[in-house]
Amino acid sequence: MNVHPVKGQLAANGERTHEADHPHSQVAQFGADQPLRLDCGVDLAPFQIAYQTYGELNADKSNAILVCHALTMDQHIANVHPITGKPGGWLTLVGAGKPIDTSRYFVICSNVIGSCMGSTGPASTNPATGKPWGLDFPVITIPDMVRAQAMLIDRLGIETLFCVVGGSMGGMQALQWSVAYPERVYSALAVACATRHSAQNIAFHELGRQAVMADPDWRHGRYFEEGCYPHRGLGVARMAAHITYLSDAALHRKFGRRMQDRDLPTFSFDADFQVESYLRYQGSSFVERFDANSYLYLTRAMDYFDIAADHNGVLAEAFRGTTTRFCVVSFTSDWLFPTSESRAVVHALNAGGARVSFAEIETDRGHDAFLLDVPEFIDIARAFLHSAATARGLGKAGR
Amino acid sequence: MNVHPVKGQLAANGERTHEADHPHSQVAQFGADQPLRLDCGVDLAPFQIAYQTYGELNADKSNAILVCHALTMDQHIANVHPITGKPGGWLTLVGAGKPIDTSRYFVICSNVIGSCMGSTGPASTNPATGKPWGLDFPVITIPDMVRAQAMLIDRLGIETLFCVVGGSMGGMQALQWSVAYPERVYSALAVACATRHSAQNIAFHELGRQAVMADPDWRHGRYFEEGCYPHRGLGVARMAAHITYLSDAALHRKFGRRMQDRDLPTFSFDADFQVESYLRYQGSSFVERFDANSYLYLTRAMDYFDIAADHNGVLAEAFRGTTTRFCVVSFTSDWLFPTSESRAVVHALNAGGARVSFAEIETDRGHDAFLLDVPEFIDIARAFLHSAATARGLGKAGR
Repeated sequence: MNVHPVKGQLAANGERTHEADHPHSQVAQFGADQPLRLDCGVDLAPFQIAYQTYGELNADKSNAILVCHALTMDQHIANVHPITGKPGGWLTLVGAGKPIDTSRYFVICSNVIGSCMGSTGPASTNPATGKPWGLDFPVITIPDMVRAQAMLIDRLGIETLFCVVGGSMGGMQALQWSVAYPERVYSALAVACATRHSAQNIAFHELGRQAVMADPDWRHGRYFEEGCYPHRGLGVARMAAHITYLSDAALHRKFGRRMQDRDLPTFSFDADFQVESYLRYQGSSFVERFDANSYLYLTRAMDYFDIAADHNGVLAEAFRGTTTRFCVVSFTSDWLFPTSESRAVVHALNAGGARVSFAEIETDRGHDAFLLDVPEFIDIARAFLHSAATARGLGKAGR
Repeated sequence: MNVHPVKGQLAANGERTHEADHPHSQVAQFGADQPLRLDCGVDLAPFQIAYQTYGELNADKSNAILVCHALTMDQHIANVHPITGKPGGWLTLVGAGKPIDTSRYFVICSNVIGSCMGSTGPASTNPATGKPWGLDFPVITIPDMVRAQAMLIDRLGIETLFCVVGGSMGGMQALQWSVAYPERVYSALAVACATRHSAQNIAFHELGRQAVMADPDWRHGRYFEEGCYPHRGLGVARMAAHITYLSDAALHRKFGRRMQDRDLPTFSFDADFQVESYLRYQGSSFVERFDANSYLYLTRAMDYFDIAADHNGVLAEAFRGTTTRFCVVSFTSDWLFPTSESRAVVHALNAGGARVSFAEIETDRGHDAFLLDVPEFIDIARAFLHSAATARGLGKAGR
C-alpha cells in the first residue's frame, strides 16, 4: 500500500515520492485476511503500521514498553525525525539512562492508524480506487488505534507489555489498552490525559476542523488529487491548538506583551507582538509535516473517546478487577486535561480496586509539560517504572 | 459619508443599500474641520458616530451615563436590534427600573469608531477614493474610541458624565475615559476587563485575524469591491472567540458530551455533539451581522491597549489624584479577563489614591457573565450607581 506524502515531504524530497518507497520506519503489513475491525463497523484491509523500536527484547519477552504518541506526534520519539530533522519527540523520557531506559527495555512506538507517518490513514491509497482515501477513509477511534497496536504487538510475538506509556492522546491509548487488554498490560503510565474528551476540548477540535474545511483548497478532502493543499486552514487549526497546549502563565513568561524587533507598534496587522510571530511560525511549520485529513480523523477519534460510555456510564466498571499497576500524572497549569480529569480516573481506578499512584505536578508550562524537561515528572516516571520492573523481576539490564 | 452595509444587511434588505440612507440610530457628523486625532498619527476626517440614547437629560446635565459596548456588540443595548431583530444587548443592566435606570438617567451608547453599525469604520466610504476604506482605514486604538466618544459628548453639550460603564472592551474604554478625562468622569463601572491585553488574549485575537485573512474571499480587505465576503474565515474566528467567552464548566453544564438529535455517533464529520452544532451556529449567525475588517480593527485595538505603557510602565501613575469613584467587577470563571487582571487595576487605583470598590463574583458562566442575569452582579451595579447618585445629589428621578 502506498502512503501519499504530505506537502512537506514533497518539498523536502523535491519530487512526489511515496512514503512506502522510502520507508523511514519498520512497517508491519496486514493483508486482506487480517482486517482491522473498526468501531464504525468497517473491516479495514489491507493496512500497515509503521513503527520504531529502541533497545533489545529480552529472552522471555517481558521487557517491552509500548509508547503511544500524541495527536500530531509520531513514532520518532527517540531518533532524529526523518522529515523535520529535529531531535526525537520524547527524549526527555526515552533513551539510554532515561526513565524509559533503552538499555534496559525494548521500546516500541507505532504511528497510530489514521495518521500520516507510514501507517495507513486518509493519505494512503484506497485499494478500491487507486487514489488517496481522503474522506472515504473510515472514521477511526482510540480503541481502533489500540486494536491496531495489539495486532502489531502480536506480530512482534509479545504477549504482555511491561508498560504502556502515553501523554495526551497517547495517555488515552494507554488507558484504553488497560481496559481492552488488561491481561496484556503489566503497568500503565498515563500522563496529562482523560478517559473522555470534555465539551471545551471538543469545541477546540471542532474549531480546528472547521478551519481546515473552510479552506477552499481542502476540496472535500481530495486535495492530493486536485494538486493543492489546505495549508492556510490547517495552519489556523494548528494555531488554535497551540494556544491550548500552553498556559496563560507560560505565554506571559515567554512573550508577555513584548514586541517583535521593535519598540513601538506599527499600527498595522503585521506580527507586532512576539506571541503573534510565534503562533504564525507554529502554524506554518506544522503544515509542512502533517496531513490535513489526518488532523480531522485524529481529532475526531479523541472527541469520540469515552471509556465510561462503553461501560454503562460507570468508569470504575471499566477497570474492575484489573491487576495492572497504574501511574497517573497531571500538571497544575494544564487546562486542556486539567487535574480534575486525572482525579476522576484515579477515583475510578480506586473504586475498581486497581493499584494506582497519582501525582499532580506544579508547573506553569501547561499541557506541553509532559513533553518538557520537568524534573519532578521525570523523577516520578523513573520511580514508577523502576518499582514496576522490580516487581516484574526485571534485572538492571531488563533481563 | 456612506457606510457600506455588511452582508447580513444586504440579505435583510434584499438590495445593496447604505446604512446612512436608512439610519438605525442618531448620527453625529464631524466634518473636515473636526478631525479625530488618532494614535497612529492620522487625522481622520470626516467621520461619523452613530448612537442611541435612552431616558432624559436633566436640566443641569448631570445624569448622563455613557455605556461603552464590547467588541462585537453595538449601540443597541436597550432596544430591539434593527438588523438581527433580537432584544437589546444589555437589558440585564439597562432599562426602566434596572441598575442603569432609564427613568432616572440619560443613557448614551455609541458605536465605536472602527465598528460597522453606523460609525465610521473600514466598511465606510473612503472620501479620497469613493470606495470602502478596507485596509486603508487607519488602525485605531481604545484611546481613539474614547476620543471620538468625547467629541460626541461635547456635541451633546455634556461636560461631565455621571458614570461611564462597560464590560470587556467596554470596560477598557471606561478605564481609559477615567485616565484621559478624569475631570469628566464622576464614576466608572468597569466589568470583566483589564488595563492591558494578555499574551494569551493577543494569541486568540491573532488566531481570529489569521482565520479571516486566510479566507481567499477576504481579498486583502477588498471584498465589497470584489463582490464576495470572507464568511468562512470570519465564522471560524467567531467560533474561536466564542469558546473563550464561556468557561469549561459552562460548556460542560450546557452541552457536556451530549449528542445532537441522536444517541450514537455517526462516525463522520457531521456535528454529532451539541457543542459542535452550537459553535457552528455562533459562527454562521455572526457573519450575517458583522463586518470582517471591523473585526480585524477592533481586535487589534484591544491588543494594543496598555494603559501602564503610556505611564512609564507604572499603572498607578495613570490614576494618580483621580476623584472618580470606581467599581471594578470580575467573575471567578472568566479566563479571558481573570480576576488577577482586575486586582491589578484595583491595586493601581489604591496606590493612585482613588476611591474604589471591587467585587469578584462567583459564577461558572465565564466571561459572558457580564451580559447575563447574574443577580449578585446586578445588585452590585445597582448599589454602586445608587450610592454615586446620592453623592452626586441626583434625586430619585435623576434630577
